[in-house]
Amino acid sequence: MTELLSNFLAGQWQTGSGTGAALFDPVLGTELVRVDATGLDLAAGFAFAREQGGAALRALTYRERAAMLAAAVKVLQANRDAYYEIATANSGTVKNDSAVDIDGGIFTLGTYAKLGETLGERNYMLDGEAARLGKDPLFQSQHVLVPTRGVALFINAFNFPSWGLWEKAAPALLSGVPVIVKPATAAAWLTQRMVKDVVDAGIFPPGALSVVCGSSAGLMDALQTFDVVSFTGSAETAAVIRSHPAVAQRFVRVNIEADSVNSALLLPDAAPGSEAFDLLAKEVVREMTVKSGQKCTAIRRIFVPEASYDAAAQAISARLAKTTVGNPRNDAVRMGALVNRAQLASVREGLAYLQQQALTLHDGATHTLVDADPAIACCIGPSLLGVRDADGADRVHDTEVFGPVATLLPYRDTAHALALVRRGQGSLVASVYGADPSTLAATALQLADSHGRVHVISPDVAQLHTGHGNVMPQSLHGGPGRAGGGEELGGLRALGFYHRRSAVQASTAVLAALGS
Amino acid sequence: MTELLSNFLAGQWQTGSGTGAALFDPVLGTELVRVDATGLDLAAGFAFAREQGGAALRALTYRERAAMLAAAVKVLQANRDAYYEIATANSGTVKNDSAVDIDGGIFTLGTYAKLGETLGERNYMLDGEAARLGKDPLFQSQHVLVPTRGVALFINAFNFPSWGLWEKAAPALLSGVPVIVKPATAAAWLTQRMVKDVVDAGIFPPGALSVVCGSSAGLMDALQTFDVVSFTGSAETAAVIRSHPAVAQRFVRVNIEADSVNSALLLPDAAPGSEAFDLLAKEVVREMTVKSGQKCTAIRRIFVPEASYDAAAQAISARLAKTTVGNPRNDAVRMGALVNRAQLASVREGLAYLQQQALTLHDGATHTLVDADPAIACCIGPSLLGVRDADGADRVHDTEVFGPVATLLPYRDTAHALALVRRGQGSLVASVYGADPSTLAATALQLADSHGRVHVISPDVAQLHTGHGNVMPQSLHGGPGRAGGGEELGGLRALGFYHRRSAVQASTAVLAALGS
Repeated sequence: MTELLSNFLAGQWQTGSGTGAALFDPVLGTELVRVDATGLDLAAGFAFAREQGGAALRALTYRERAAMLAAAVKVLQANRDAYYEIATANSGTVKNDSAVDIDGGIFTLGTYAKLGETLGERNYMLDGEAARLGKDPLFQSQHVLVPTRGVALFINAFNFPSWGLWEKAAPALLSGVPVIVKPATAAAWLTQRMVKDVVDAGIFPPGALSVVCGSSAGLMDALQTFDVVSFTGSAETAAVIRSHPAVAQRFVRVNIEADSVNSALLLPDAAPGSEAFDLLAKEVVREMTVKSGQKCTAIRRIFVPEASYDAAAQAISARLAKTTVGNPRNDAVRMGALVNRAQLASVREGLAYLQQQALTLHDGATHTLVDADPAIACCIGPSLLGVRDADGADRVHDTEVFGPVATLLPYRDTAHALALVRRGQGSLVASVYGADPSTLAATALQLADSHGRVHVISPDVAQLHTGHGNVMPQSLHGGPGRAGGGEELGGLRALGFYHRRSAVQASTAVLAALGS
Repeated sequence: MTELLSNFLAGQWQTGSGTGAALFDPVLGTELVRVDATGLDLAAGFAFAREQGGAALRALTYRERAAMLAAAVKVLQANRDAYYEIATANSGTVKNDSAVDIDGGIFTLGTYAKLGETLGERNYMLDGEAARLGKDPLFQSQHVLVPTRGVALFINAFNFPSWGLWEKAAPALLSGVPVIVKPATAAAWLTQRMVKDVVDAGIFPPGALSVVCGSSAGLMDALQTFDVVSFTGSAETAAVIRSHPAVAQRFVRVNIEADSVNSALLLPDAAPGSEAFDLLAKEVVREMTVKSGQKCTAIRRIFVPEASYDAAAQAISARLAKTTVGNPRNDAVRMGALVNRAQLASVREGLAYLQQQALTLHDGATHTLVDADPAIACCIGPSLLGVRDADGADRVHDTEVFGPVATLLPYRDTAHALALVRRGQGSLVASVYGADPSTLAATALQLADSHGRVHVISPDVAQLHTGHGNVMPQSLHGGPGRAGGGEELGGLRALGFYHRRSAVQASTAVLAALGS
């Protein structure tokens, strides 16, 4: 039997009482560790976090909490090698892809450490300036933001065991709200190990950071009115969470990031041969192959002018053909595995579902695996699909295949393109490619109501732009509609979810005591 | 048969095909008008609002929309007398109470007209400043706020047919989002009449403002992904709305204002005879009796130091005894009726429920009705209850009796008082009474995480403060937890609900074209 990983709850390391669920190497097929949450006293653990952890964190200033984030960054940096080993073994990712998760998570944590420093030695924030409530200036209204008196439960996805933890935990802990993370079982090891390293370093007060690995049964039931829950995963599970009594009846605040059928849009003036055209082809291939397409932000739909359809198909296919797929331990390999057999089956199924409406422009099955047994390894080559009738292809607009799969779609004019993009019903991100600043700005604005982020790639930023799918802590992460309607990151905006806004109406003498 | 009021949907006045539900005079018992929504094509009406109304509003600038709000204010002011007549007849309110609804609504609309002017000749907003995404300043992130491409459905409560409409419609229309209002049937007449006056004046583009009176059946089903819904009413209905497929599965954004067991807190240093003590007694009586206690923000629980319990009971009871109750057409009457027989029965039931745990300090049954037949009129005198064991009185902390009923509760020390207030599980507002600015400020901060608003009454603002229960457009209205977790008003903050935030990542040339 492999090692059974411990959970950290109620300030104690506790193993579940069951045999647990096994985590596997998706390339070699070997069992790595097991996780189990059977028999944990969740109510007691949540109460400990809420009362001990919350009180201790709220007693600190933002600057003190920021210093703790900075200390956690140091601990994580000191253990980077171990994290890369876990990622290779458990996620089957090549080094560059592991970096997106591991270094991306540490970078985001560090960014919040720096942002937190700017908030100073206080433990609440003023929101805007005081406003008069009448002609006499003696009685005014001052909005304040104070941390919620509860826990933050994170139910996370398998694709970012590191970044998914820290991009949520950093703003929560900085806000003064204790964190309980439940990583997706398939890749829970890295999350557990990172929490363990930070907990063992004794940086945060008891109850501030907990981890529960295994089944999520009972977690939502343990939530109380002033707790918050942040979920990343499928739209189906999101609907269950929204309807759960904790949310529907106890009014627990919820943030959701769900399915997203993201778009890349080549503007009409970017003809084949133009720089913008080449930038699109390059970015599409990067997005399809990074983490084997297992990114919520990856490009799923590519919109190009009708006249550029064939050229785009060729340019993207030619780049995809060069992608080497297989064992991430082999330096020649550029794209590793999917996370497990279930995801492999799901991607194959999704691909077949789309292929009933789409042609295959580049077939992932043509890629021979490097150093990997196709009967065991969860590896799959990248596939580019295409549909000439973009209006009729309803599956393409509605289906997120969570792997190296994207579909090329032609449009007639800009209005047509925008209408097609919007058929995604709300996405995390769209990227736009062109050379004219005012056309790019106008298009970005048209996409803003249905996308949490619009990434504009023009030739002048070819070497500088941060990538369609790369989530920067400075920018909002989340999208309306199908994408879940959540908001994460965006610099200090992220703290809003963990704070409560209140208007204090009082005499100026009282408001002066608040720091107004 | 009385008049059957028309609905305004799809740019047309349409009567329902059924006989409708009757609205009554709650004092005289006479039938006034009827409302009905049977047979309306809701899908077509919502589509008209979404497509025609939305496109037309979004094409306007904030300043142009603000000018429309100002024009609507003029129309409403010109028809004030008719509104007061409807309020007297349909809501049974005295003039001062009708003013809270009618003039409060017009004032709020006017406030947003002024706020909107400051937003200038543009149709989206920049959110914060651009942030660098790397060392090179050429590629940056600028957040924008753009109106959602959908409708705003308001499912409103009976107690504020005017204010409840305009406090929501003003920020929605200013944001560029068309409004469909469904007033509570009991008092729908005033809402319908105000919409009719504004529609007849031809101020807003077709589809911008619609009203559906009668049953709410099918309204939620008509909502699509980019629509929003704002509900004011009971926690029970709120739970149904949160679990509705429109919200849980189509991710319609929702704002809820539900039950609220609001508190008034006399600080330990405010002994009987002090100014703060008198201010508490005065404010409690005002809150209990304005609109016969039918305000979501009314004081339901009164916390005083143990030593002041008897004196507070006497001071409040003495003031309550002077309250004349009955027909609002009689100038001697200070407090009119509840809205209908169902509410009267509900308040009586709630009162009896609380009385099983509480003593009656002042009995509303001792008030003889003025000019009103007790067998017909929905009038009830104000009752003050009291519980010496504040910890044991669970019903008092959990039950909102929506009428002229409040309960006096003694506390031992400030920590005890705060713990008792928090047993409300989140409220719209708490008021604090005392004389020391720093103690008042510290207490307000302690209450801020469980209240959307904290109203501080000190002797220096005795004549200036705007009232515990009075909702000012400058301040947030809404509360966490049981109060629904919603946010309304708060000046321009209200526009956030109707906008989508998006991060535009682009070269500085593109961001310059956005106005960054």
